[in-house]
Amino acid sequence: MDGRVKPGHDENEALLSSTAFKDRYFEDYIPGSGFEYGEIRVGEAEILEFARRFDPQDMHVDPEAARRGRFGGLIASGWHTGAMMMRLLADNFLPKEASLASPGIDELRWSHPVRPGDMLRIRVTVLEATPSRSKPDRGMVRTLIAVLNQDSNVVMSLKPMNIIARRSAL
Amino acid sequence: MDGRVKPGHDENEALLSSTAFKDRYFEDYIPGSGFEYGEIRVGEAEILEFARRFDPQDMHVDPEAARRGRFGGLIASGWHTGAMMMRLLADNFLPKEASLASPGIDELRWSHPVRPGDMLRIRVTVLEATPSRSKPDRGMVRTLIAVLNQDSNVVMSLKPMNIIARRSAL
Repeated sequence: MDGRVKPGHDENEALLSSTAFKDRYFEDYIPGSGFEYGEIRVGEAEILEFARRFDPQDMHVDPEAARRGRFGGLIASGWHTGAMMMRLLADNFLPKEASLASPGIDELRWSHPVRPGDMLRIRVTVLEATPSRSKPDRGMVRTLIAVLNQDSNVVMSLKPMNIIARRSAL
Repeated sequence: MDGRVKPGHDENEALLSSTAFKDRYFEDYIPGSGFEYGEIRVGEAEILEFARRFDPQDMHVDPEAARRGRFGGLIASGWHTGAMMMRLLADNFLPKEASLASPGIDELRWSHPVRPGDMLRIRVTVLEATPSRSKPDRGMVRTLIAVLNQDSNVVMSLKPMNIIARRSAL
């Protein structure tokens, strides 16, 4: 990652809480609201470095073999794309104090290759915000996240869950 | 990651193809067969390094704040755990030539914190192996992967899909 994370902007200001994202609570995540953040530039050196460590398949670590392969060139490990997505989410969307944990992700899809030089951004849509029945100080927020490249191809999509503290828990 | 990946061993040798894993093809992935690989030691320095880059939340990057937080100490980013899982999968389970792509993952769950000093291994069960209808040279392999720590707690589970070339495509 080049670390070039541009400040996020919000697509749907009417639905967005005016609260700074780091101070948000469960109550600020309104189903139907949508946001866009990014971008991050994907460098060839970072693709190689991540994949040598975590996903040393030829398509991710060997530019020559990748050129002859089915993608016609080096592509990022899907876990690298997910990690870059996470950086945008942590920097822009999740609260600093109130983000308690993530139980998991449903329907993660890698739908388009991520190549050196791509510029990635994310679109986040709040799908559901459900107060916990057993723990009144928190709730579960479900989102749909699309990771887009500079041509607006969806390269990855996922439905993560996040447990967020309620403001009333303060 | 300390890079200490021990050679994998196979739990269910009766079901395992005798083919070296790097030369495996679609036909070698038999539904019902199970394998275990690892382990990888999780170091505090690697937890901090990964999270500073990709997931800079206090529970992953700030040992002091993490100690006061709900997990009582630093825990690894879930994306880091996933990336370590991927390393064990690439080193031991996926074929070198015949691994074509992964369309995605279903039902990813982070069920237990991963802490500095943990030793992780994976259990892979082949759930389904379905020949492609449209492309006779390949098939889809669905697996259930459990990531276990030294106490055999499941820290993460997931159901990835992998597109694998058929031997007959040679």
